[in-house]
Amino acid sequence: MPEKKMPPALRFMLAARRCELQGLESLSVTCELVTRISQLVHQLQKERGYSNIYLGNQSPHYLHQLDAHSAESSLFEGQVHDCFMRMDPGQPGAADRARLFNRIAYVLHGMQELAGLRRRIRALELTPRQATQAFTRLIGGLLAVVFEAADTAVDPGITRVLVVLFNFMQGKELAGQERAAGVEGFSQGYFDSDLLQRMQQLEEGQERCFEVFAEFADDDAQALWHRVCAGETAAQLLSLRTMARRTSADARVEPSLCELWFELNTRRIDAMKQVEAHLAAGLLEHCRRSIAQAHADLDNHRTLLGRLAQMDAGSDQALLFSVHSSTLDSAPQDAIGNHLARSILDLLHEQNQRLQRVSDELKETRETLNERKLIERAKKLLMTQYQLSEDDAYTRLRQSAMERGLRLVDVAQSLLAFAARKAQDNPRSDKNPRA
Amino acid sequence: MPEKKMPPALRFMLAARRCELQGLESLSVTCELVTRISQLVHQLQKERGYSNIYLGNQSPHYLHQLDAHSAESSLFEGQVHDCFMRMDPGQPGAADRARLFNRIAYVLHGMQELAGLRRRIRALELTPRQATQAFTRLIGGLLAVVFEAADTAVDPGITRVLVVLFNFMQGKELAGQERAAGVEGFSQGYFDSDLLQRMQQLEEGQERCFEVFAEFADDDAQALWHRVCAGETAAQLLSLRTMARRTSADARVEPSLCELWFELNTRRIDAMKQVEAHLAAGLLEHCRRSIAQAHADLDNHRTLLGRLAQMDAGSDQALLFSVHSSTLDSAPQDAIGNHLARSILDLLHEQNQRLQRVSDELKETRETLNERKLIERAKKLLMTQYQLSEDDAYTRLRQSAMERGLRLVDVAQSLLAFAARKAQDNPRSDKNPRA
Repeated sequence: MPEKKMPPALRFMLAARRCELQGLESLSVTCELVTRISQLVHQLQKERGYSNIYLGNQSPHYLHQLDAHSAESSLFEGQVHDCFMRMDPGQPGAADRARLFNRIAYVLHGMQELAGLRRRIRALELTPRQATQAFTRLIGGLLAVVFEAADTAVDPGITRVLVVLFNFMQGKELAGQERAAGVEGFSQGYFDSDLLQRMQQLEEGQERCFEVFAEFADDDAQALWHRVCAGETAAQLLSLRTMARRTSADARVEPSLCELWFELNTRRIDAMKQVEAHLAAGLLEHCRRSIAQAHADLDNHRTLLGRLAQMDAGSDQALLFSVHSSTLDSAPQDAIGNHLARSILDLLHEQNQRLQRVSDELKETRETLNERKLIERAKKLLMTQYQLSEDDAYTRLRQSAMERGLRLVDVAQSLLAFAARKAQDNPRSDKNPRA
Repeated sequence: MPEKKMPPALRFMLAARRCELQGLESLSVTCELVTRISQLVHQLQKERGYSNIYLGNQSPHYLHQLDAHSAESSLFEGQVHDCFMRMDPGQPGAADRARLFNRIAYVLHGMQELAGLRRRIRALELTPRQATQAFTRLIGGLLAVVFEAADTAVDPGITRVLVVLFNFMQGKELAGQERAAGVEGFSQGYFDSDLLQRMQQLEEGQERCFEVFAEFADDDAQALWHRVCAGETAAQLLSLRTMARRTSADARVEPSLCELWFELNTRRIDAMKQVEAHLAAGLLEHCRRSIAQAHADLDNHRTLLGRLAQMDAGSDQALLFSVHSSTLDSAPQDAIGNHLARSILDLLHEQNQRLQRVSDELKETRETLNERKLIERAKKLLMTQYQLSEDDAYTRLRQSAMERGLRLVDVAQSLLAFAARKAQDNPRSDKNPRA
C-alpha cells in the first residue's frame, strides 16, 4: 500500500522513523566535518610549532619547513571550508544548529586571519608567544565546533564516539601547547615559576581529557593509546619534564635541549594522531552503519505497516481500531483485543520505548560534555569576577575542590549556581526581553 | 550588501540567528496544536462524564445531553486532526520530532476508535469503568503530545508556559478522573477501600500538578486559579470528599448525592477551563511576540553585518580580520585591535553568550518535566517487575520516599538508576545494535 493511502496513524509512525533517519543523515555531514577538522587541527599544530621555532632562531632552514607546513595547512583549510559551505547556511535548519553555526562563524573569521598571521610571522613582527596565541585561538574555535557537533548529535553511539574524539583532540591540543611552553623554557635555558605552573596545568589538563577518553573509547583505540604512553618517547619526555622543573635563572640547562624537547613532543603528537585517525575512521564507520540500519528498519517498518493497513482495509470491521486496545504506556489489561489492533499498539509501544531509551542514553553521554563545559564556565566566571588569569582561575578552582574533598565539576557547579542565584536576586535592568 | 556576497563568517552568524527564528516559527504551529488539544480534552472530559452517567442510569434525558457532547467533541477532534495533517509527516523533519510523531500516531489511532466506542456506549455494551478507561487512554495520549511539545520547544519562555499548561491540563484531567471515581462511589451509595485509595491518589496527583503550575505561572493565571480554589464550589466539594471517606458498605449515603457530586465537579472543571484558556491565550501571545522580536533582531543583525562587511570591503586592509583580535571566550587582552574587528568579535561573543544562556534556561525548565517523567517511569517499572497496579506502584514509591525522608523524584531516580545498572550487568543478547 502506498504511504499516502495509509491511515494517518501509520503515516505518523513512519514519519517518526524517518525523522530518526534524517537526523542520522545530517549527522553524517557533521561527522565528516569533524574528521576534516581533526586533520586541519593537526596541521595547524605543526605550523604553530614551526612558527615558534622560526621566530625563536630565524634560521632559513626552519623557514623552509614552515613554508611547507603552511602550504599543507592551506590545503586542509580548504577542505574544512568546503565542508562548511556544503552545510549551506542559507537553507532552513533546525533550531539546535544555532550554536554550531555561531561557532563556525568564529572559525571562518579566524581562517581569514591566517594570511595576515603568516605574513607577520615571516616579517618577524610577532613574538613566539603572540604567534602561539593566534594559532591556539583558531584551534580552540575548531575544537568548539567539534564540541557542538557532539552536543547536538542525535544517536547515542555516535555521540559517544564524538565525546571520545573531542576529548582526545582536546588532550592532543594541550600536548601541543605544552610543546610550545617547553620550547619557550628550554630555548631561554630555564623555566620561571609562571611557566612551570603553566606546564603543570597543561599536563593535568591532558590527564583529565585522556581519562574521559579511556572511559568511553573502544578496545582498539585504548590499545593504540596504551602503546603511545608506554613507548620510549614517553619515558624520555618524562625525564625532560623533570629536568625542566629543576631549572631556574641560576640553574640553567643547555638551550639546545629545546630541539630534543620539540622533536620528542612532535613524535608523541604524531603518534596521538594515529589514535585520532583510528577514532575518526570509527566515527565515519559508525555513521554509515547506523544509517544503513535505519534505512533497513524504515523499509521493514513500511512493509509491515502497509500489510497491516491492507488487512484492515480488507476486513469487514475496522479491525485496526478496536476499543479493546491496550494503552501506549501500560501492559495490556484485557485479553479480548484482536490480533491486528494488538500488533499496531505493540509497534507503537515498542517504538516509544526505544525512543525513550535513545533519549536517556543521549542525555547520559552528553552529561560528560556538560561537566567539561561547567568547569570552563566556572573558570571564566572567576576570571571576570576577580580579574584572574586563566591559570590562576583554574588553580583556585582546584584548590577549593581539594580543600572541600569534592570533584572539580561539583565545585564548578556550585559556583555557577551561586552566581546564578545572586544574579536573580539583583537582576540587571534589561530592555530586550529575549536577551 | 546582499547576504550572498557577505563574507562567510557573517553569513554563518546570520544563519545562527535564522535557525532560532525558524525554531520559533515551527514552535508556533505546535503551540496552536496544543491550544486545540486543550479544547478537545475538555470536551472529551465532558463526554466521558456524560457517558458514565448515561451508562449508570440509562435515562433518555442524559442520552440527549450525551449526543450533544459527542457532536461537539467531533468538532474539536476535526480541528486537532487538521492541525496534525498540517504538520505534514511526509516532509523532512528534525530528528527531535520522532517522539512527537509517535505520540501523534497513538492519538490518531485512538481517535479512530471513538466511533466504535460511542456506538458501544449507546448499545450499553460497556460498563461505566470500561468507557471511562477508553476515554482516559485517549486523553492521556493527547496529554503526552503536549508533554513532547513542551520537551522539545526551543524557547525558554515558551517552554515555561508549556510546562505550566501541561501541568494544569494534567491536574484538570485528574480532577475529571476524580469526578468519575466519585460518581462510581456515590451512585452505589458507598466507597470501598480501593475506591477511596484511588480518590486519595487522584487528589494528591492534582496537588503535585498545581504546585508546579503555581511555581511557574504568571500572576494573572495564579489569581484566576486562586479564585477557583477559594470559591463556594470548592468548599462544598471538600465536604463531599469528607463524607465519601466516612462511607462503608454498612454506612451508605443517599445515591442521589451522585448528581450533586457530578454537578459540583463539573463546575470546578469548567472554572479550571477558564484558567486553561488564559494560559493557552498567553502561549499564543508569547509565541507571536517572540517571533516578532526574532524577526526584528534578524533584520537588525542583517543590516549591521551588511554595513560592517561594506566597510571592510571598502578599506585598504582586510580590517575585518585582524590578527589582534580577542578570543571568543575570553576578555580582550590587547588594546591594539581596530574598532571594526572588535565589533565583529563582540557580536560573535554576545551571540555565543546569549545562546548559552538560552540553552541553560531550557535545560532548567525541562528538568521540571523530567521529574514527572521519572516518577511515571519508576511507577511503570514497579508495575512490570512486581505485577502491581498503577495505584499500588505509586503507593509503594511514596512510602519508600516517606520512610527515607526523600523527595518522590529522588526515590524514582535511584530506582531507575539501580534497574539500569542491573540491566548493564546482565545485558540481554540483542541482535539489533541500534535498538
